[in-house]
Parts: sequence; C-alpha cells; structure tokens
Amino acid sequence: MGTSLPRRSAGDGRPMSMEAQLPTRERLLSVAMRLFWEKGYNSTSVADILRESDTNSGSLYHYFPTKKDLLVGVLERYRDGIEPMLLLPVWEGIEDPLERVFALLAGYRRLLLDSDFRLGCPIGNVALEIAKPEPEVRERLVQNFEAWTGAVERCMVEAGDRIPGDVDRRALAAFALTAMEGGVMLARAYQDIGPFDAAVDRFRDYMARLGLQG
Amino acid sequence: MGTSLPRRSAGDGRPMSMEAQLPTRERLLSVAMRLFWEKGYNSTSVADILRESDTNSGSLYHYFPTKKDLLVGVLERYRDGIEPMLLLPVWEGIEDPLERVFALLAGYRRLLLDSDFRLGCPIGNVALEIAKPEPEVRERLVQNFEAWTGAVERCMVEAGDRIPGDVDRRALAAFALTAMEGGVMLARAYQDIGPFDAAVDRFRDYMARLGLQG
Repeated sequence: MGTSLPRRSAGDGRPMSMEAQLPTRERLLSVAMRLFWEKGYNSTSVADILRESDTNSGSLYHYFPTKKDLLVGVLERYRDGIEPMLLLPVWEGIEDPLERVFALLAGYRRLLLDSDFRLGCPIGNVALEIAKPEPEVRERLVQNFEAWTGAVERCMVEAGDRIPGDVDRRALAAFALTAMEGGVMLARAYQDIGPFDAAVDRFRDYMARLGLQG
Repeated sequence: MGTSLPRRSAGDGRPMSMEAQLPTRERLLSVAMRLFWEKGYNSTSVADILRESDTNSGSLYHYFPTKKDLLVGVLERYRDGIEPMLLLPVWEGIEDPLERVFALLAGYRRLLLDSDFRLGCPIGNVALEIAKPEPEVRERLVQNFEAWTGAVERCMVEAGDRIPGDVDRRALAAFALTAMEGGVMLARAYQDIGPFDAAVDRFRDYMARLGLQG
C-alpha cells in the first residue's frame, strides 16, 4: 500500500504533480503539510486531505488513524527537514557563521514576500493555533524549536571570540527565534515587511551592543 | 432588540452568568470574544456562538451578518479596551514609566500561568490563524498592535533622559511587542514559562545596553 501508484492520470494534459507520484503515506504527509501551512491545522478537514491527495479514507486511516497523527507526522517531517530543507538552502555559499544566522532570518523574509504574507513559520502557526496541544504534538513542537535554536547556537559558538565570552550563546540563539517569530507575526498582520525588518534590525543592534566583532 | 432580556433562567439554581445578562449584541460579542480566544477563530462555529450566547440565528444575523463581522466587532472591543481593560489594571499603583513596560509584560506572564498556557495574546492568535485577512480584519489587527505599541512608546518617552537621546522610542516599543509575542508563542509551545522569561530578560538586557538609567 505504501508503494501504490498514483491513481490520478496525466491524460488530461496536465503534468502529474510531484505529490501525485509519491507513495501513499508520503503523499498524505506532503498534502497535509501543505494544507496545514496554507490554511491552518483546524481549518483543514480530513476531506480536504483525501481530496487533494486522491486517497481513499481506508488508506488514510491505515497510516494515520486520527488527524492528530497526521500533524505528528508533519511535525516530524519539519524536524527532520531542518538541516536539509531549511538550513542548507539558505546557507549555500555562506561560510561566516554570523552571516549564516542573518541568512536564515532572511529566508523567512523571502518567504513572507514571495507568499504575499500568506505563509509564515509553520511551527509557530501550530503553536498558537492549538490551545492545549496533546503531549505528542507539544513534544514535536519543542523538538522543532530546539533544533532551530541548536543550529543557531552552533553558529554563535563557531563565531568564537567575535562574541564576548560572557555572552550566553544559547540565550542569544533563543532570542533570535523569539525575534523571528514575533517579526513574522507582525509582518503578516501588517501585510508589510517593515515590522519583520525592524525586529531583525533590533536583534542585530542587540548583538552589536553585546560587543560583537562584525 | 439590543435591550432584550436574557432568556436563560436562573431557576436551575445556578447563578446567571454575567454574559447572560447583557443585551443581545453585547452578549454575542462577549461570547465570541471568549470562544475565539479559547478555541481559535476558525475552530469556533456560528452554532457554538448561538448556543453559548443563548441567541437565535435571526438575532445573530441582524447584528453580525457574517462570522467575519463578529471578528471585526471583537477586534474593535480589544482595541477600545486596551486602556481600561489591559493597561489600567496592570499599571495600578505603578508610576515609573519603565516599570510600567515590564508590568505590562508581567501581565502576559500571569495570563500564561493562570491559564496553564491555554491563553496567550488574542490578537497574535488571530494574526497567525488567518492566512490572508480581509481588509477590515487586517485594519483592526493593526489598530490593536499600534495602540499597544503607542502606549509603550509613551512610557519610553515619559522616561525622558533615562533613555539616551539617540534611541528611537518607537522602535524600542515595537521590539517590546515583538519580544512579547515571540515569548508568548514559545512558552505556549513548551508549556513552560522559561522561554517567555528568557525573552523578557533579553529585552531588559537590550535596554540596559542601550544605556538605560534604571
């Protein structure tokens, strides 16, 4: 079942989508990932996922007995994709560890602009949308934020003595996440990149005042 | 119709709720405000609002033809309530303008703890939950964030020369909002006050490094 061929035909002249060619489980995750991001978790119905993945409900329930199980699967994908899908693309060709931090932030800036402010951080959306996440969900949210923070912390550590020794690298990385999430939220509300740029500017100024050696 | 008496009786021995005694329009707004905050905008159905407000659909549609109109009304309530409902309670007995900024942030801390992380900033929730808000909604979101930022900016201005003259008071207030929203999001995801406290600590440290005179 995991290798069932896509039933959608390309006979209507449209190219078969990437999603349609995936094995069932991967196709379901891929569609859920996209819909949760675009529409929100609560606004995405199981019927939406079945329709867009061209899957029958028996297959869905085989792999994901509940919508929450799909969310857990999606959050695991994000977690496992942080290195290959998020960091490597924005860090390509950038060696300087502190430039990498700002390149990561610039990636969210591009996402906001390219999506006309429709898309922000998919993890942050879920964190606010679900008032009281069940433990499996909460755990995956935390794993995502920890992996992001850990990657930025490593940049801060690699920067060596360009950051004064008494500055807590971990706390600085966590503040980068805070500023990014707050900035993404405000930019989406204002439908304007200004508040995001302002957040990054303040974070940059904070780093400079910590005694950062550019 | 705006003055219709509540139909819910207290005859079952339970005290009539405050909500039940409000005129219809106010009762609808009050219930919608609570449900949007607790459950989210998308997860709250019109049926939920009718049931919890003990209102018939004719009355609802008379005052609020669409769910979006209810959201606009709710956001206007938050906007108009910033001074009396948000700021005055947390600033009571506090004269120092910079202490007021941190008292406001502490108000969100208390909300997170008192609600066991179920409740955060109701405006921030809506900002992330609706991928592409219609203009009337977007405008009210911005009015809320602007009113919040404006109030904090006035504190920064009142602090006079305790903040160095070259520091942009407006930008500093906007960064307080960014740090609060990011901190609330992370605390809710972690179900732990630690990330919120860390965000406030970093903001406080930033202000200190700007040359703030305590």
